[in-house]
Amino acid sequence: MSTLLTPDARAVLERLAIEVPSWAYGNSGTRFKVFGTPGTPRDPFEKISDAAQVHRHTGLAPAVALHIPWDLVDDFAALKAHAETEGVALGTINSNTFQDDDYKLGSLAHADDRIRRKAIDHHLACIDIMDLTGSRDLKIWLADGSNYPGQADLRDRQDRLQDSLQRIYERLGEEQRLVLEYKFFEPAFYHTDVPDWGTSYAQVSALGERALVCLDTGHHAPGTNIEFIVMQLLRLGKLGSFDFNSRFYADDDLIVGAADPFQLFRILVEVVRGGGLEADSPVAFMLDQCHNIEDKIPGQIRSVLNVQEMAARALLLDRDALGAAQAAGDVLSANGVFMDAFQTDVRPALAEWRESRGLPADPMAAYASSGYFERIAAERVGGTQASWGA
Amino acid sequence: MSTLLTPDARAVLERLAIEVPSWAYGNSGTRFKVFGTPGTPRDPFEKISDAAQVHRHTGLAPAVALHIPWDLVDDFAALKAHAETEGVALGTINSNTFQDDDYKLGSLAHADDRIRRKAIDHHLACIDIMDLTGSRDLKIWLADGSNYPGQADLRDRQDRLQDSLQRIYERLGEEQRLVLEYKFFEPAFYHTDVPDWGTSYAQVSALGERALVCLDTGHHAPGTNIEFIVMQLLRLGKLGSFDFNSRFYADDDLIVGAADPFQLFRILVEVVRGGGLEADSPVAFMLDQCHNIEDKIPGQIRSVLNVQEMAARALLLDRDALGAAQAAGDVLSANGVFMDAFQTDVRPALAEWRESRGLPADPMAAYASSGYFERIAAERVGGTQASWGA
Amino acid sequence: MSTLLTPDARAVLERLAIEVPSWAYGNSGTRFKVFGTPGTPRDPFEKISDAAQVHRHTGLAPAVALHIPWDLVDDFAALKAHAETEGVALGTINSNTFQDDDYKLGSLAHADDRIRRKAIDHHLACIDIMDLTGSRDLKIWLADGSNYPGQADLRDRQDRLQDSLQRIYERLGEEQRLVLEYKFFEPAFYHTDVPDWGTSYAQVSALGERALVCLDTGHHAPGTNIEFIVMQLLRLGKLGSFDFNSRFYADDDLIVGAADPFQLFRILVEVVRGGGLEADSPVAFMLDQCHNIEDKIPGQIRSVLNVQEMAARALLLDRDALGAAQAAGDVLSANGVFMDAFQTDVRPALAEWRESRGLPADPMAAYASSGYFERIAAERVGGTQASWGA
Amino acid sequence: MSTLLTPDARAVLERLAIEVPSWAYGNSGTRFKVFGTPGTPRDPFEKISDAAQVHRHTGLAPAVALHIPWDLVDDFAALKAHAETEGVALGTINSNTFQDDDYKLGSLAHADDRIRRKAIDHHLACIDIMDLTGSRDLKIWLADGSNYPGQADLRDRQDRLQDSLQRIYERLGEEQRLVLEYKFFEPAFYHTDVPDWGTSYAQVSALGERALVCLDTGHHAPGTNIEFIVMQLLRLGKLGSFDFNSRFYADDDLIVGAADPFQLFRILVEVVRGGGLEADSPVAFMLDQCHNIEDKIPGQIRSVLNVQEMAARALLLDRDALGAAQAAGDVLSANGVFMDAFQTDVRPALAEWRESRGLPADPMAAYASSGYFERIAAERVGGTQASWGA
Repeated sequence: MSTLLTPDARAVLERLAIEVPSWAYGNSGTRFKVFGTPGTPRDPFEKISDAAQVHRHTGLAPAVALHIPWDLVDDFAALKAHAETEGVALGTINSNTFQDDDYKLGSLAHADDRIRRKAIDHHLACIDIMDLTGSRDLKIWLADGSNYPGQADLRDRQDRLQDSLQRIYERLGEEQRLVLEYKFFEPAFYHTDVPDWGTSYAQVSALGERALVCLDTGHHAPGTNIEFIVMQLLRLGKLGSFDFNSRFYADDDLIVGAADPFQLFRILVEVVRGGGLEADSPVAFMLDQCHNIEDKIPGQIRSVLNVQEMAARALLLDRDALGAAQAAGDVLSANGVFMDAFQTDVRPALAEWRESRGLPADPMAAYASSGYFERIAAERVGGTQASWGA
Repeated sequence: MSTLLTPDARAVLERLAIEVPSWAYGNSGTRFKVFGTPGTPRDPFEKISDAAQVHRHTGLAPAVALHIPWDLVDDFAALKAHAETEGVALGTINSNTFQDDDYKLGSLAHADDRIRRKAIDHHLACIDIMDLTGSRDLKIWLADGSNYPGQADLRDRQDRLQDSLQRIYERLGEEQRLVLEYKFFEPAFYHTDVPDWGTSYAQVSALGERALVCLDTGHHAPGTNIEFIVMQLLRLGKLGSFDFNSRFYADDDLIVGAADPFQLFRILVEVVRGGGLEADSPVAFMLDQCHNIEDKIPGQIRSVLNVQEMAARALLLDRDALGAAQAAGDVLSANGVFMDAFQTDVRPALAEWRESRGLPADPMAAYASSGYFERIAAERVGGTQASWGA
Repeated sequence: MSTLLTPDARAVLERLAIEVPSWAYGNSGTRFKVFGTPGTPRDPFEKISDAAQVHRHTGLAPAVALHIPWDLVDDFAALKAHAETEGVALGTINSNTFQDDDYKLGSLAHADDRIRRKAIDHHLACIDIMDLTGSRDLKIWLADGSNYPGQADLRDRQDRLQDSLQRIYERLGEEQRLVLEYKFFEPAFYHTDVPDWGTSYAQVSALGERALVCLDTGHHAPGTNIEFIVMQLLRLGKLGSFDFNSRFYADDDLIVGAADPFQLFRILVEVVRGGGLEADSPVAFMLDQCHNIEDKIPGQIRSVLNVQEMAARALLLDRDALGAAQAAGDVLSANGVFMDAFQTDVRPALAEWRESRGLPADPMAAYASSGYFERIAAERVGGTQASWGA
Repeated sequence: MSTLLTPDARAVLERLAIEVPSWAYGNSGTRFKVFGTPGTPRDPFEKISDAAQVHRHTGLAPAVALHIPWDLVDDFAALKAHAETEGVALGTINSNTFQDDDYKLGSLAHADDRIRRKAIDHHLACIDIMDLTGSRDLKIWLADGSNYPGQADLRDRQDRLQDSLQRIYERLGEEQRLVLEYKFFEPAFYHTDVPDWGTSYAQVSALGERALVCLDTGHHAPGTNIEFIVMQLLRLGKLGSFDFNSRFYADDDLIVGAADPFQLFRILVEVVRGGGLEADSPVAFMLDQCHNIEDKIPGQIRSVLNVQEMAARALLLDRDALGAAQAAGDVLSANGVFMDAFQTDVRPALAEWRESRGLPADPMAAYASSGYFERIAAERVGGTQASWGA
């Protein structure tokens, strides 16, 4: 067997788990058009069946994140049982306060107490669901913001946001966590209420230990050094989770690693450096990307594989050699050691290792030849295809 | 009467006409949510009635651009007559090759000849409509592009695009023009087939004299000096039209001048400098912006007023003093002359001038007190509100 | 007298004081070329004389920031006395750890303890100078960073930076403060050790109450909403000072307000909103910009006037009307109230007010006709012109 | 021998030649500091000796670009002979119109005819040198631009630039070419006179067939799809040359491929696609990067190797499989084929191939152990180290 992956590296990779989002299996698109596809799930049960394919072929995605209300079901115990039957667990609960008419001008930061209370209550209901599903994390991404200068009082909104978060935080169980995502633009175009890691950090720090920051790799200004933020949040003990995806200029729904594989490598180097892949790490990994024009299940398989590949490369990094070059101030040698890990093709070693664990060497091919897609395309006729709108 | 506006400036301002887009009066939004509003038009006739309110109160918007198929009607003569009754004309025809399932991977640049032919035919049909409406311009904005490296052959697409445009161009009447818009991202995320002015310029130059570039103020990379492009296209004789709007980071649907009024001023200074407001100028002005959360008709009124105000400031520029400072290499004085025009508040003079022409001094207030909104909100009950989807 | 400026607004404007940087009067440039000019100061005394011209004609710049070692003199008491004679005070002390060969790979975050100790000692020496000059603030901007991934251990550097800052902070007197500037790129091109407000905030929060963040308006990624950061830092009680300047894409040495006057207005609106212009405000204002091609003293005069003008417009904001429109969710009205303050030309009222206080109505013209430049150009012959290199 | 590189690929790689810039071996830095290093050349002869080391160990850099006046010598025949002795040729001549006091406000676009004439004459003198050195290309990069709106008349500058270029173009010999570089910012901060490929294309198209565009990989706005421009310029027959380097946010002097290796791969894929590596290709390749903190000669070796590695990966691309996936509209498969080429580690195959051609398997190590650096560090004592200032 290839010796490229050391036993230590394999132990780490064995732990690597990346939640997949239920909404990746429904239709999604841009403001211009949402394209439909055959076989698209019509309900949360079908979404979970699809999500389970990712884990089946990769061993990397043992949990499925839910989005409320998109994944509301009458019987969460049944959904949980269904997931277990499919070999996966229910994971992070994602709230949604951007699709109700009431939320046109905000939710947790809204100036109107009635609407703000409604948004808080939605989150409390999400925690109720977490109690049923056994989910650990409540992830909050807010569409709150404004489109025009003067439209809103930025400061008041920030204070109200803190107040709202406190009410939600108080409701969390001992084993539950709140992770607050930041995003520097969209769907609000002038300001967003949690635009950067600093704001998320300040907000969650005021809540308590079980409130943490969620870093979405697609939510930064051009030129931002994302791995620096990863390092800093790990250093401050406040990195709760990742939302993986990628983007070139904007929109954040491309396959993670597709736009800049080297950036994903650098991020994973910092994750490893900061203990994010240790057994007791508080850092959760998740995809948060949808597929507008590419096939959905293979798109998710490709995504978790990309994370695995870059994690494997990050684990190849010769830290002794790197440390020596850094200590010597040898810029080119240090960069050389770093690039050597990135340039190494780990795919054959990973394929071999996968097979040794009873997984397909080539998960993309395995899925393609599994007949799953042909089956769902034939079976799922009628009904309403799941999408962001449903 | 205020002497701020010279007779020459008034003559120029009198010529200023900004087309408004029919789709600004329907609902629009982001990929996250489209919010509805009372009084939203249900058909092209109602859209035109709304658009006419802008002209009624400002005297600035004598024509309404149509979007096909959103504005398809059985009887364009009737639509034209309706517009005339409302005091406006039908303007630019905008094609749409991004909402049919066939166009998932492109239209005029598509690899499949059948789909490409369909997209060409759609444009020929648009020209048929132009013959009926008397429109001069066919505006082509393409959603064509790709999301992932390798997905498409960039070069082949460019060649196919040229071929498609030639077939469309050949169909144009003597008095008709084709304007090709560029956009550097969205809805395609990796590449767009007409991403920059250089590509649009190269494409239309290969077509002929009646093919020109459309510059949308919201379609550039961060840091781009847009007024430089205005200058260059005017210099090259290829600036056909403007799509006005503004944006902070992305999405290009904010009120023109809302994000960076000084940029709008600089653009209009170059328009004036390059003859774009002369009587025989080939440059057409148009809004291309929708209103997600703000009121639609007032949003359009505010927009055309912003263009008027910045045009008035641009006309205040003391070109003799500026030229002298530039010739002397006096950086601060030249900038000072420039800023003096920008800093001058032209609103009172414009209000006075408006009144002298039988228009309301304050078009925003005049519309608000006109009772129009209350009337349409009461009358337009039932039916399907217009939006990008319809 | 114009009633545009209310008594309250005048009281606030009377407090407005903007430190000017001594280095703005020496030569500066780009990595391509530093152009010299007649009359450039040869020593700190001459720099202060030049800086005093700004205050003389505007009443806005009562203090001069020093840069060590550029402004090292044998006798700071003499320099202080000279400043007082010229009608100004000595202000913020700026350290410099980027021009010694030892600092090639960093200073306060350097991996080599000897160099790090040297950098700490430099700051202690700066505090010694503060004791002599009576300066309140030690401003730390670090060139620390790296150019290549792998070159440095980001986390270790962050920890060492904290350790270094603690040693410096401990040395501060009771009335002295440390302000830590952030900058998202340059002169390091891959990572900078204090790239964003979040990092500066985390670093200074770990120090103590007298450690605060310095916000340089030119140090953000494209698309960043700077006024949001102003709001947030004021909210968190950690905004220590501003470095004013502007930029289009990069380099941060243009006249404040030159690139985007509306942005400067929005920033000052948040300053006012957050109490930053109250009598007891901890926020210090400073220019940090040099003049590559424009005249230096007039460049500084123009700059402080720009801040004054935008502060005056911010004070015009009708907060009752704004609050009402915000509460009503009336996006366009709220923005309209906001823009009305921005669009109002305050220059005549400010000129009148200046004259009422014994200052020239037009400080730019007053300086130009003062003969000062002609005098220094004639007198300052020989010697070495001050620049960043000296 | 590894079969990864096909005979066809080897034939292409054998042709690959990347000019290195003489100025990369002198000192350079940022506006904050230029650090010196032992062994730095004191004159053009020593620079060429250093440059020859790159070719000696890689076989990739057979020519050295000169920069006038930095590389002015009394006897260019002697310099040429020296280069030949060292195993390299003299290559592209780069003009310099940014370091004379006269050029403070521009050169070929300057408003003052005397200065503009001086700048034209400088270029004519450069062509005289080309006649002596046998260089084919005159590369023009202009620092021309402005820092403040209003400072200059953008349109007049563009017209004057065209006039200046025509006068230079007329002087070219039959076998000589003019390549015009574009850069979207720096050292001018508001506008640059050749900011984008469109402007360069319009300017050179007006000159004639031997005027072409130079694409510097570091000179684009954030988010720009550079490979698209490569494709377009090849399609239009106007891509004359590359200046290779990389950057994260700004400054364009990092080792090519260091910031985003995948981008370099995509660029080389388009070069191959567009015939840029064919035997008769008009496209010249050059590094244009300096080394602020890393070792200079190894920095250049690393750079040409990066280009070679990405060219080799680009040549691995299975174009049949790619074409089939593209034709089928199979987004993920097409991207998969594309990524497979990028992910493959070509370094062992290249090392083997290098050795088969009598070159070191590891050029970095070979140089390090050659003793060259130790020798020049010991020998080059005294004199003035070369830098941009000399």
